[in-house]
Amino acid sequence: MGCQWLVFLTVLLFSAVAEASDCATDGVPIVRNISEIEQDSYGIPGLSHVTVAGSVMHGFKEIEVWLQTLAPGTGTPIHRHSCEEIFVVQKGSGTLYLASNSHLKYPGNPQEFPVFANSTFHIPVNDVHQVWNTNEQEDLHFIVVISRPPVKVFVYDDWFMPHTAAQLRFPFPWDERCYQTPPVKDEL
Amino acid sequence: MGCQWLVFLTVLLFSAVAEASDCATDGVPIVRNISEIEQDSYGIPGLSHVTVAGSVMHGFKEIEVWLQTLAPGTGTPIHRHSCEEIFVVQKGSGTLYLASNSHLKYPGNPQEFPVFANSTFHIPVNDVHQVWNTNEQEDLHFIVVISRPPVKVFVYDDWFMPHTAAQLRFPFPWDERCYQTPPVKDEL
Ligand SMILES: [Zn+2]
Ligand SMILES: [Zn+2]
Repeated sequence: MGCQWLVFLTVLLFSAVAEASDCATDGVPIVRNISEIEQDSYGIPGLSHVTVAGSVMHGFKEIEVWLQTLAPGTGTPIHRHSCEEIFVVQKGSGTLYLASNSHLKYPGNPQEFPVFANSTFHIPVNDVHQVWNTNEQEDLHFIVVISRPPVKVFVYDDWFMPHTAAQLRFPFPWDERCYQTPPVKDEL
Repeated sequence: MGCQWLVFLTVLLFSAVAEASDCATDGVPIVRNISEIEQDSYGIPGLSHVTVAGSVMHGFKEIEVWLQTLAPGTGTPIHRHSCEEIFVVQKGSGTLYLASNSHLKYPGNPQEFPVFANSTFHIPVNDVHQVWNTNEQEDLHFIVVISRPPVKVFVYDDWFMPHTAAQLRFPFPWDERCYQTPPVKDEL
């Protein structure tokens, strides 16, 4: 076995250790630099997501805080979840699409709400919604706060897909790397 | 009764109606302009507090979001609470004082953590803490997120006051105006 193999194995071992400790929820530093936290689109075009304070990443039990940016002309999936969700818009402007007709079999045409810098908006529990950057000039920056983490998201292809056909995404992509399946009880 | 009395009574009636609907938690608009929300120091010198999304003001059950500013050389009271609390620093810098010695009879000398723009910090449940703007040049701006609203705060005069002597402030000053005592059951 050549020396380059040893180097390769050492690097592999180190990165495995680093990744594991990144997901350890005890001993999370009290103060953290947000710009040093992992940032990714998690497969959603135009999105930049940072879990500022999270359940699977940092061990919070009751609240989770995200920092998100949407590029012009991009948005979140159409989705619902059974937690409280509050947005604080820091920069830019956009549109919230919200379908409050949960008595129907499908969301139906959503209401449109303009959102803007220094505005706050919230999503009533289980209402189907989508946030879109409809401003062609600037990125839309906002903070998101949710209860009952980690988030369990039901995704819709369009506003007329039946609620029963919406697809559960759990763990959601940004929780996947650190999510640990609860241990299954041995039934023997 | 002169006409000025009628005017006076009408104004009184209108402001009572306005105040009542300001505290009504059903029908809170989905999007709100943060600069139009009530802002006050609530008796804490140097503080500016805005309840962006609150329990007693807006009907949220699991999370509450505040926007706070501390002038140079001012800070929060020394206090503890049994909820999760996450800070996101938007501008300025300061110091978090945190006493994690909850096994003692009193908080004791706290640890000092520098906090800065684009940092996040959290307070472990029940740890005694204080946030101070130790930067003489600029205001310290941050967002606060708490679970289990409305907040039940125990205030300390100093770091050596016994935990048992800390004074409960509930409802906290910014919740006072809209807080309604739960109805007492008639025992007859
Ligand atoms: Zn959502
Ligand atoms: Zn606190």
